[in-house]
Amino acid sequence: MTELYFEDFTPGRVFDLGTVAVDRDEMLAFARRFDPQPFHVDDEAGKASIFGALAASGWFTASLWMRTYVDGVLARAASLGSPGGEEIAWPAPVFAGDELRAAMEVLEARRSRSRPELGLVKLRASLQRGDETVFRSVFTGMFGTRDGTRTS
Amino acid sequence: MTELYFEDFTPGRVFDLGTVAVDRDEMLAFARRFDPQPFHVDDEAGKASIFGALAASGWFTASLWMRTYVDGVLARAASLGSPGGEEIAWPAPVFAGDELRAAMEVLEARRSRSRPELGLVKLRASLQRGDETVFRSVFTGMFGTRDGTRTS
Repeated sequence: MTELYFEDFTPGRVFDLGTVAVDRDEMLAFARRFDPQPFHVDDEAGKASIFGALAASGWFTASLWMRTYVDGVLARAASLGSPGGEEIAWPAPVFAGDELRAAMEVLEARRSRSRPELGLVKLRASLQRGDETVFRSVFTGMFGTRDGTRTS
Repeated sequence: MTELYFEDFTPGRVFDLGTVAVDRDEMLAFARRFDPQPFHVDDEAGKASIFGALAASGWFTASLWMRTYVDGVLARAASLGSPGGEEIAWPAPVFAGDELRAAMEVLEARRSRSRPELGLVKLRASLQRGDETVFRSVFTGMFGTRDGTRTS
């Protein structure tokens, strides 16, 4: 059920998206398919690498965050997709077995001038391992407005 | 075999990463697991959406590009991972069956001051469907230098 519209994404609002565990088998399968660099697919190469152990592909980490965002926000939001963002960062490696806390914070929100039935919301995504940020992204989400959402 | 070091990533150099076909089953499986928004997992919802048809998750698109980059560049490069980037954009939706051309262009390159055995290379990733850009990202890759690469 849609209950979150553009108007609900007010700057400063933080959504706790819960925790996500990094499954080793899935992390490896993802890396073998999309990012088969040695330190993402081989334990020994991971140990010898700058990361010190087998590390997750950054795209897997981003995708794990995305799922928490869909489950925690988008599933009940008038989401119209995203044109992209201005920051994506992996400040620390992610390892198999990690438990990460996901969050999303609203940074800015403005109604589209050319298409007033939607609004653009600048968001900060994050995944934390304890106090350490392992993923951060600032991007724009498009949302239908409460008064003008299409029937789609 | 490693043949591409930091010194080989000179600003302006373009790497053609070949083409990639968007497989419908894989696109759907990815969306169901990581980005189950209706327009990514359901044909009817896709048709009714802003995209006009079932559209790929942007993270799937990014991951498809990544694989072309690993195959075309990183598999023979002294890659040390990426701390992140400053742009990620999905200017047009990606559909099942699309054939996309992948490329990477070197924008800037500088040796690390604190760790002279590695260099930071700012890259522009892109996926094109004909003349239309469907994915673009500007991010930093870290590469070992020809004279100082560690044995890892």
